[in-house]
Amino acid sequence: MAFSRPDTIRETIRQMRGYIPGEQPQDKSYIKLNSNENPYPPSPHVVSSLHSAVNENLQLYPDPVATRLRDKAAAVYNLSREQVLVGNGSDDLLTMLMRTCVGPGNRVVYPVPTYSLYDTLVTMQDGEVVPIPFPADFSLPARLTEVAAKLTFLCNPNAPSGTLLSVHQVETLAQQVHGILVIDEAYVDFADETALPLLPTYPHVVILRSFSKSFSLAGMRIGLAFGHPRLIDELLKVKDSYNVNRLSITAAVAALEDYAWMRQNVDKIRATRARLMTALRELGYFVYPSQANFVLARKTGENQEAVYLGLKEQGILVRYFSSPDLADCLRITVGTDAEIDQLLTTLQRITI
Amino acid sequence: MAFSRPDTIRETIRQMRGYIPGEQPQDKSYIKLNSNENPYPPSPHVVSSLHSAVNENLQLYPDPVATRLRDKAAAVYNLSREQVLVGNGSDDLLTMLMRTCVGPGNRVVYPVPTYSLYDTLVTMQDGEVVPIPFPADFSLPARLTEVAAKLTFLCNPNAPSGTLLSVHQVETLAQQVHGILVIDEAYVDFADETALPLLPTYPHVVILRSFSKSFSLAGMRIGLAFGHPRLIDELLKVKDSYNVNRLSITAAVAALEDYAWMRQNVDKIRATRARLMTALRELGYFVYPSQANFVLARKTGENQEAVYLGLKEQGILVRYFSSPDLADCLRITVGTDAEIDQLLTTLQRITI
Repeated sequence: MAFSRPDTIRETIRQMRGYIPGEQPQDKSYIKLNSNENPYPPSPHVVSSLHSAVNENLQLYPDPVATRLRDKAAAVYNLSREQVLVGNGSDDLLTMLMRTCVGPGNRVVYPVPTYSLYDTLVTMQDGEVVPIPFPADFSLPARLTEVAAKLTFLCNPNAPSGTLLSVHQVETLAQQVHGILVIDEAYVDFADETALPLLPTYPHVVILRSFSKSFSLAGMRIGLAFGHPRLIDELLKVKDSYNVNRLSITAAVAALEDYAWMRQNVDKIRATRARLMTALRELGYFVYPSQANFVLARKTGENQEAVYLGLKEQGILVRYFSSPDLADCLRITVGTDAEIDQLLTTLQRITI
Repeated sequence: MAFSRPDTIRETIRQMRGYIPGEQPQDKSYIKLNSNENPYPPSPHVVSSLHSAVNENLQLYPDPVATRLRDKAAAVYNLSREQVLVGNGSDDLLTMLMRTCVGPGNRVVYPVPTYSLYDTLVTMQDGEVVPIPFPADFSLPARLTEVAAKLTFLCNPNAPSGTLLSVHQVETLAQQVHGILVIDEAYVDFADETALPLLPTYPHVVILRSFSKSFSLAGMRIGLAFGHPRLIDELLKVKDSYNVNRLSITAAVAALEDYAWMRQNVDKIRATRARLMTALRELGYFVYPSQANFVLARKTGENQEAVYLGLKEQGILVRYFSSPDLADCLRITVGTDAEIDQLLTTLQRITI
């Protein structure tokens, strides 16, 4: 039977193509280097905390604002509880920012290519995306501050390039930007520096963090936003009442309690990253200087879809983007040393 | 330092008061009869499945559409996978429906008093709430179908009244309604009948289910929407990419695998409910015929805030609503027999 009332769907949504996340195959096991997950498991302290929490009170609602996690994060990052907001992944926090600030026709600006979910979320709000192309070296595009935008997004380190703008550059941006500057630091634990020190000086800056990458908890969906208490209060109004479940709160608190575990995995990944970048260059790729847990490798003008498919056939998933500006690139997550060895061997066989 | 850019916040949000969920005290242990949680724990099969899942792959993203859960739900409820959508609680599904269908000025209609989150979600979309008062007996208000609404919500059994409209009445509504009819069946497992049999005939009907009540999983945030595949496809576009985490998917699948556990708890709760209703009537309350896991008890014209506070002081939390139409009511979740005994003893002491 046909769906009878298509006019109930907003025109914007009818026209929209949903965001396509990386493949998450459930059927077959791949070497999974396509979604920037951590190849190492979460801390044993996280696992044991989860085992304890499974036995307690799952029939009760979670704390709507995850106070334990706010307090723990405030202590770790030297903030107040009121500056911290917890999301069901940082995607949830992006949604809250959009719903709070972006109405029909409002502008949202960011350098591109970047995390393509921003486009989807602005479109859903009937806002206007103002994409400003990055220069070839992924430095800060000057035109970014010329737009009277409600929100300016800066994914830093950027996805999919992996490149980092220095805190100095970010501060200059904060001084010139219109509206709110959202610095999406999902990958910052793999980088040399963070924009966190800017928060006390710039009340219109919001910083987003994710537990999906450095803390090895992509499966649990936890993100944090740091910002001015007044802005956090507005975001809380649009938050889903119980957006983060009991076990995710438990996992995140435990992950912060074993911060050293995260740092240790980050160190391993940074070492593997350096090796991967060198090897890819030896295979003839241009590799952007990565400060994230993935690298973007380009063979200028050579479409990489066949390479992506060849790797997939050999049981290795990497990320290929069909858009014209990225079709000659592969984005490869930094896995374990063994995984990267296998990738490189296979890549060599395919590309030569 | 002051927040410097309040003009970045949408006027609608600035004006809005956020939804206030029931108290979820983290500090002290209460007899908690205020949020319609299940007093019994989830199935041992859920707990053991969670223990297994905690040891596996938490560093990987979940399946974005929770295929295992869609398939299991489709089998249990005699639907196809394409008719099932999984939410981070049914609140998440309400949000998806609003974002898909409601734009500025679009009307959303429902009988009131009902679940007050609907108001908040419509307001966030700049939609127009058209509240139609229930008659005193909480039967179907005729005017409901006179409004050219995008969405009509029917919480059935209704919160906070606990009353149920028969499938026959719901079918009449489905035949007359404009736009999409959303039947929020969060409490339906405690009722005598469900509107599920209407789905094959009415492609503009959506049914929402929750795992927070009957399945004892409020802490895990899982909801299901059942509807026409074409509509589900549109809702998927506005879904957060990875809205339900790995452990919640695991818990929900396991809960459906031990459906008998849920039915057994429901039977106990229905028996306790009958006893509670009788006892409250003996204490001089008017009690609405409840088909949910809570009862609404009224002392016409007598504000119940003092009773609510008196119970709280004695370590018993129930729900008091300050709005004029409900201020002479208490909404009491059906707990265990022992909890209800203690409630009744305390209530008798306070009110006499």
